[in-house]
Amino acid sequence: MRWQRLDDVRGATHVVVLEPGEEPVQALTDFARTHDIRAAQITAVGAFEGAVVGWFDRETHDYRPIPVGEQCEVLSLVGDIADGDDGPTPHLHAVLGMSDGRTRGGHLLHGQVWPTLEVIVRSVRPPLAKVYHPDLGLALIEPEHRSTAP
Amino acid sequence: MRWQRLDDVRGATHVVVLEPGEEPVQALTDFARTHDIRAAQITAVGAFEGAVVGWFDRETHDYRPIPVGEQCEVLSLVGDIADGDDGPTPHLHAVLGMSDGRTRGGHLLHGQVWPTLEVIVRSVRPPLAKVYHPDLGLALIEPEHRSTAP
Amino acid sequence: MRWQRLDDVRGATHVVVLEPGEEPVQALTDFARTHDIRAAQITAVGAFEGAVVGWFDRETHDYRPIPVGEQCEVLSLVGDIADGDDGPTPHLHAVLGMSDGRTRGGHLLHGQVWPTLEVIVRSVRPPLAKVYHPDLGLALIEPEHRSTAP
Repeated sequence: MRWQRLDDVRGATHVVVLEPGEEPVQALTDFARTHDIRAAQITAVGAFEGAVVGWFDRETHDYRPIPVGEQCEVLSLVGDIADGDDGPTPHLHAVLGMSDGRTRGGHLLHGQVWPTLEVIVRSVRPPLAKVYHPDLGLALIEPEHRSTAP
Repeated sequence: MRWQRLDDVRGATHVVVLEPGEEPVQALTDFARTHDIRAAQITAVGAFEGAVVGWFDRETHDYRPIPVGEQCEVLSLVGDIADGDDGPTPHLHAVLGMSDGRTRGGHLLHGQVWPTLEVIVRSVRPPLAKVYHPDLGLALIEPEHRSTAP
Repeated sequence: MRWQRLDDVRGATHVVVLEPGEEPVQALTDFARTHDIRAAQITAVGAFEGAVVGWFDRETHDYRPIPVGEQCEVLSLVGDIADGDDGPTPHLHAVLGMSDGRTRGGHLLHGQVWPTLEVIVRSVRPPLAKVYHPDLGLALIEPEHRSTAP
């Protein structure tokens, strides 16, 4: 376990509402970079008219894409923002609700908002460092402290 | 994308615990109106002995009700509170877990708590305006700023 | 409905990142006890290489275990920390995403992290009391105020 204590940045909670046709991964990446948000907690609800979610394949070291090609409720969009090699980067996981109540979900690769996505971004500081691991094919958050782990 | 910066209201986080038989949409609406909470982030866990969730039908401009008539874990209840025509209004999406681990979910229309629902309500300010769109049949949050969108 | 007003503890948000093989229920219990976190909101995303979730059985007054024996995305891990008879105790509900986008979930009894679990722990005060109910076989959060309930 690695951990880090964070300060709330006074006033640095944002509500971000996406409009029909907007793509949340790109929009939240742009928002975080424009507003220099380098550590945050994210929760959101709303709906998509389509999305692609991913499941991380340990063999290929990449996300296996899972298309969801229908209007669906965004039942939860939970995640964080950390500071990667390319700047602030959101990490978002989605649970999507279909017309009969079934659910699907994964790591959010792409979504198309309709009619709204209501996102709460709660910033904290200092920046959370995200370090690329070539052996995994993934960048992971690396907090400063480490506790004993199994 | 529309967005707004929010201030944390010092001390204005509430834990709200619902008891057997309570209905969360009405209870949280009443709570928000009694305590004048006009902008908040909500997360909750607990269990229902039944619920009705909804999927928004673009053709009818209304939620299609999906009854879930069994004891289920509330795996996530995520949402927000904004200030609509009738006053503070929660927007809640639920993922529910059945006895075999299957999940169902949607926009929470109605739930019956058993034995508990543990809700964290984190208030912010200023109030978030929610504006009714007759063409959609929905009220959407409208933050003050707009960024360029596709 | 029972409720309580909470103060944000300045600076008392923590990011906790679990590493391969770590078990989140025990790790977050240990973390809360080490850092004396007796009231908090939790959200997390990441992935497990296996987990056991639970559905609370009203007849037996215990969780029915549901094994999930495969690599899965942690689509949401939502919950809280309150102060039980044994000290600070996390209450965590998980939604897990399989390789084809199906989801399963329940009360998190046990998980095995791979490759990461990124947890945001937002502490508040005062401590939230959790009281054991022998008739239910469960400990429930009991805030100080009570509103009229049905």
